[in-house]
Amino acid sequence: MDAPDPFESSPDETRTEMMKATYDALQKHGYSDLTIQRIGDEFPKSKSLIYQHYDGKDELLVAFLEFLLERFKADVPTDGADDAREQLRMIVEYSLGSFDADHADFLGALTALRGQAPYDDAYRNQFADADDFFREHLADIVRTGVEQGVFRPVNPERTAAFLLATINGAQTQRVTTGSDDPIRAARDELVDYIRTQLVVEDQ
Amino acid sequence: MDAPDPFESSPDETRTEMMKATYDALQKHGYSDLTIQRIGDEFPKSKSLIYQHYDGKDELLVAFLEFLLERFKADVPTDGADDAREQLRMIVEYSLGSFDADHADFLGALTALRGQAPYDDAYRNQFADADDFFREHLADIVRTGVEQGVFRPVNPERTAAFLLATINGAQTQRVTTGSDDPIRAARDELVDYIRTQLVVEDQ
Repeated sequence: MDAPDPFESSPDETRTEMMKATYDALQKHGYSDLTIQRIGDEFPKSKSLIYQHYDGKDELLVAFLEFLLERFKADVPTDGADDAREQLRMIVEYSLGSFDADHADFLGALTALRGQAPYDDAYRNQFADADDFFREHLADIVRTGVEQGVFRPVNPERTAAFLLATINGAQTQRVTTGSDDPIRAARDELVDYIRTQLVVEDQ
Repeated sequence: MDAPDPFESSPDETRTEMMKATYDALQKHGYSDLTIQRIGDEFPKSKSLIYQHYDGKDELLVAFLEFLLERFKADVPTDGADDAREQLRMIVEYSLGSFDADHADFLGALTALRGQAPYDDAYRNQFADADDFFREHLADIVRTGVEQGVFRPVNPERTAAFLLATINGAQTQRVTTGSDDPIRAARDELVDYIRTQLVVEDQ
């Protein structure tokens, strides 16, 4: 039998449970029908704890967005070590490959929250940070590939901005249209772009 | 003095006024704080007319999405006549060029509604239709360019899917991050992609 976990009721665990309850309520009811009551229904502890932590739905959802984007950043593949081509291949596969229902749900949640950003500074700032993070990660990979001589001497920032726009657009279309074929076509063309525009030919 | 307009109170005009009221309320309050009450506040006629036309907020917003996407389709540049390169240039400029506040507001509204699509079939179907429309339009242009010999013999559907994903992604990032530089970088790279991958060199 496992020893009792001394952190079982730690603030961090409670926060994680609230975030999970928010995520589950979102998947069940959709963004526009999301209420504190419904989030509370998914929360295994007393609902009053939610109100102790957050002033209301708006504050809870900003914290939830922060939580999702932390997870998003942690999930971006950063392995593949020294090989820039392999790192880029992994990111394209992770972002636009055939992914499971959990990954689709996760992207759906992010897309729903991104839909709030045109009208909410807090959301806009968080998405700007997340996009910057992913773009800089891509630019680092491209820069490394150029230095290693496996990529052509492209502008890493510009290439990264282009890759990110294509990946974001294809992911968003995927979870907002339910149609996979065009996304596969966009991914195939992106892979070709990397092969013909980025990778040095005789590699 | 203009003659009285016999269609002043036609069902079509009332519908347009309801759509404008919805749009104005959305810009003022954001999606998550949008209510029938607030839409009614922007509507110049009796609020009860809204309830005569729509069963509630959900039905009104689906009609609003349809209205926005009709306008979106009507706004996609289809001029430029016979020159495929010029048509494509106009679309990239229209989609990712320096556009005014009205265009940004319009894209913000579409992005907010797209955020509902992961959890709502009616929204998902409409966005699938709109994306198909834009993608087929792009594919037609690419196909024409290939036939004219001004574009290389690429796969028009695949190229169009790639162009659309990049355009959608860059537009969405623009209205959800408030940051313009990365979008400009993505557009510059897209223009280069068209020049080097699509246009036949000696044109």
